[in-house]
Formats: sequence, C-alpha cells, structure tokens
Amino acid sequence: MPRAVREQQMLDAAVRIFGQRGYRAASMDEIADVAGVSKPLVYLYLNSKEELFTACIRREAAALVAAVRAGVSGGEGGGGVRGGLPADRQLWAGLQAFFTHTAERPDAWVVLHNQARTQGEPFAAEVAVMREEIVAFVTSLIAEAAREAHRKPELAEREVAGLAQALVGAAESLAGWANGDASVSAKEAAATLMNFAWAGLGELMEGRRWVP
Amino acid sequence: MPRAVREQQMLDAAVRIFGQRGYRAASMDEIADVAGVSKPLVYLYLNSKEELFTACIRREAAALVAAVRAGVSGGEGGGGVRGGLPADRQLWAGLQAFFTHTAERPDAWVVLHNQARTQGEPFAAEVAVMREEIVAFVTSLIAEAAREAHRKPELAEREVAGLAQALVGAAESLAGWANGDASVSAKEAAATLMNFAWAGLGELMEGRRWVP
Repeated sequence: MPRAVREQQMLDAAVRIFGQRGYRAASMDEIADVAGVSKPLVYLYLNSKEELFTACIRREAAALVAAVRAGVSGGEGGGGVRGGLPADRQLWAGLQAFFTHTAERPDAWVVLHNQARTQGEPFAAEVAVMREEIVAFVTSLIAEAAREAHRKPELAEREVAGLAQALVGAAESLAGWANGDASVSAKEAAATLMNFAWAGLGELMEGRRWVP
Repeated sequence: MPRAVREQQMLDAAVRIFGQRGYRAASMDEIADVAGVSKPLVYLYLNSKEELFTACIRREAAALVAAVRAGVSGGEGGGGVRGGLPADRQLWAGLQAFFTHTAERPDAWVVLHNQARTQGEPFAAEVAVMREEIVAFVTSLIAEAAREAHRKPELAEREVAGLAQALVGAAESLAGWANGDASVSAKEAAATLMNFAWAGLGELMEGRRWVP
C-alpha cells in the first residue's frame, strides 16, 4: 500500500480518536490500532503525537474550507458557475455545504472547533488561520450583497466585519446543536440560520436598521 | 481580613492568571503571588488547582448570567421593572449587559468560553450548565416575542431553540472579536448583533421568511 494511502488511514483514525477522546487523552496505541498499523509506523510517518494532531487540523481545515467554497461556487471543480447568483443564494449554498460537511464529519468538527483552539500553540494558530479564512470569505459575500443592494448608506467595512463574525459564530453554535441532536438535519440547521441571518441581513441591506 | 474576602482576592488572581496563561500552564505560585498571599493559604482555602479552577468557573458563570438577567430586568435588584418592555428592548438591554460584562472581564470570558469547555470534566459540565441557562433564557425571550407578534404561523418550539443557539453563538463570536480589538466598544458589538439578529428575527416574527 502506498505511503500516501497509509497516511490518510492514519489521519482518519487519528481524527476519530482525537475527536472522541480529546488531544491529551488520545493514545497513539489506539490510533495505530484503529488505523490497522503498528505504532512505530505511525511515528515513522507522522513523527509525533503533536505533528499527527497538526496534520489532522490542517487536513480537516482544508477540507471544510474547500467544501464551503465548492458549495458556494457550484460544486467541486465547478469553477464558480454560481458566481452570477444573487448573494443570498450563494450564502444558502455555503450554509448547506457547511452543515452537511460538519454533520458528515462530527469528529473532525470537534477537533477543529473544540480541541485545536484551546490546546495552546501551535494548534490554536493553525485553526485560527482557517477561521480567519472563513470569516474573510463570509465578509466578501456580505460586502458583495451590500454592493448589489447599493442602497444608501452602504454598510461600513467595519460593520460588515462584525456581521461576518456574528454569522460565523452562529454557524459554529448551530453545528454543535445539530451534531448533538440526531433529529436535526443539516438542511434544517442551514435553513434556521439562513432565516435568522438573511432576513436580518436583508433588512440591513435595504438600509432598515433596528432602532430602539 | 475575613476568609470570604481573602477567597475573593484569590479568585480574582486565579481568573486573571488562568485567563492569561491557560489552565495547565497557570502556576499556583503565580496565583498566590498576584493574590498577595502564601501558596499554602491558597491550598488551605481552595484545596487544589482543580477546585480553584472550578470555583473560578462557578463565580464567573454566575456573574455573567446575573449581569445579563439584570440588564434585561432593569438592573441589579430592579425586580424585573422592564418586564413590560417589548421583547426587542429586552434583548437590546441583555446584549448591552452581555458585551459590557465580557469587555470589563476579558480574562473571565476566556476562562468560561475558551478554557473551561475543553479541559475535560468536571469543568466542561460546569460551563455547559451556564450556557444552557443562557440559551434557555434567550429561548424564552424569543418565544415571548413570537407570542407578542402572534402572527400565524407561530414559530415552532424547535425553530426557536435553533434561533437561540444561533444568537448565543453569534454573541460568543462577537465577544471574542470585540475583546481582541480595543477600538470596538461593548455598545458597538451589541448594536451590530442587535441589527443582525433583530431585523432578522423581526422579519421572522412577522411570518416573513427568506425563500430561495
């Protein structure tokens, strides 16, 4: 079996065990066992528990970002065919992709969202880069929507940044809610957030703010 | 100095050091030093690092929940004088209280939001109770707003639960954003979320959903 394939099997096993046991409690013995390889081979390929965890974070962060981008642009390799869609349709596609991906890979979501952020460096920095990339992507979607609506006054750049943070935080929270309740589908979670966010963002785009 | 006062000084020091160094890296020596007491006295009063951390979580969780409730009900000891206010004003008051409190106690927010949730049990359970209490409180506000609006169809209980999760997650995300950028005031963070959430929730209350 080629090394690249073996490594992916090790990473699959590691994401599962890290996600279920936590970084510190996870044992390299169990990871090797689940991957169906010897522990020395895991060390030979991935060097250390720390490097293995870092590799898990990188792979899963890249997979999540790719899934969301592919959702927005109309599928893997779709080459951005949905680029001409209105911003709300792009957001809806992105949310569906996000909740589908996190529902399909609950252990990976736990590794990224719950574990990596708080195990100190270098892990926190790895996942912070991913979160910033997603916030920047959402920021560009919101800014584009504001330009489309082009009512005055345009949303300030600073407020767009805040709205993107709110949207990403809401999505993170709902992913945990949906993954913790088997009766909540990815589509339902996406629809809940779309209604919460868009009807709200939609009003903002039209220059209608909530006033006390 | 009475024991109760000394204990609060120790907790003040512990929240600061745990917040800045992380649970594992924090040293009892530094905590005792910052509190201006001997290390044996910290152990005499709080028993262990684990119990000290648990006491920090409990105190800060109770303080945060109390601040939000007081904001909504019109101040500490206000006895719910704002109970008659429309739901949007109650939410606005609650958000201002939340962002003011988390801005004033950034180390406490890091302990509750970033550290306690991921250091395993018993800490995760302590902070999960607080989060559930806040989600339940927000759920009741949203349900009340829906009853006020009483347009048909009423929001389903399940969707209200999802909206509350979205709102709490958005608030958590914005607290981190605001605390990480000194130029973002508590009031600005609250206003950003209020516009995001209420204009959106407001449309939902009127039965106007986003449709693809």
